[in-house]
Amino acid sequence: MTMTKACRRFITPFLRVLALGATATATAVMAMSHESTSVLNLTLEAKYSNTPAFRYFMIAEAIAGSYSILALLLSCKGLLSHLVLMMDMVISMLLCSSISAALAIAQVGKKGITHAGWAPICGQVPKFCDEVTGALIVGFIASALYLLLVLSSLHFPVSSLPMTTKP
Amino acid sequence: MTMTKACRRFITPFLRVLALGATATATAVMAMSHESTSVLNLTLEAKYSNTPAFRYFMIAEAIAGSYSILALLLSCKGLLSHLVLMMDMVISMLLCSSISAALAIAQVGKKGITHAGWAPICGQVPKFCDEVTGALIVGFIASALYLLLVLSSLHFPVSSLPMTTKP
Repeated sequence: MTMTKACRRFITPFLRVLALGATATATAVMAMSHESTSVLNLTLEAKYSNTPAFRYFMIAEAIAGSYSILALLLSCKGLLSHLVLMMDMVISMLLCSSISAALAIAQVGKKGITHAGWAPICGQVPKFCDEVTGALIVGFIASALYLLLVLSSLHFPVSSLPMTTKP
Repeated sequence: MTMTKACRRFITPFLRVLALGATATATAVMAMSHESTSVLNLTLEAKYSNTPAFRYFMIAEAIAGSYSILALLLSCKGLLSHLVLMMDMVISMLLCSSISAALAIAQVGKKGITHAGWAPICGQVPKFCDEVTGALIVGFIASALYLLLVLSSLHFPVSSLPMTTKP
């Protein structure tokens, strides 16, 4: 069995299952991130849905998770391999984009931007910050797995498989 | 001449020149974005270098611009086409990531996040906000051009060119 075939048959599905696990975990952790705190008799509630970037992150991870299942089914049957590669590319861009947006906001939450008058909030809601950090780490792993999937597809191209080789 | 050859010879270099123009413009506009404003005798200075996400955006655009020149030279000589495709992919991820991070921060600058106590700042520094918006739009165009480059390379794969076809 050639390296290309081994990659297509075992490594790619294995990466997809890992990516499915990572995206599902990131979605769940972000969705459940939540902390309430009291400041001068006011109850402040920190949750992901208050921040557009975190909402985007959760939706992107959920889409990538659903797509992972679909791609697993399609690649099991050897269908539409060219379309799957292009979709892999789009999904990895989506993951990369959402994690970057969420990371930018999380960084402001941790360090603040003094010039804009935005104070860090992780001192007030440390549990929420830890949960978001966890979701971002798992999201980063999912993003890296998708990058690996695309790069491996480019390195062992679809067109080198017998089923799609032109006569 | 086949569609694949036409794509390789004319469309791809044309897209690269456009991407070079877009990344160079985005870098320059972001680098020159600047506004000073006075609030209660205090002079506040808004510039891109105060915000990590905007610094990241500028560096990513500059890297993509430099890479565009290198890729133009390499693809003119028909060298390393496989490596160029993989690098295109990495650069488009970098552009996508940087624009998402910058966009997330720009959105907070425009709308604020009341739950975190981060007030919008575009009312105080409208010129700076317009300049950043301009840089982001051009950066978005650069990112779209790179996505188009990668998708066109995937659609008209390198392996379908005579020079790289296996015997």
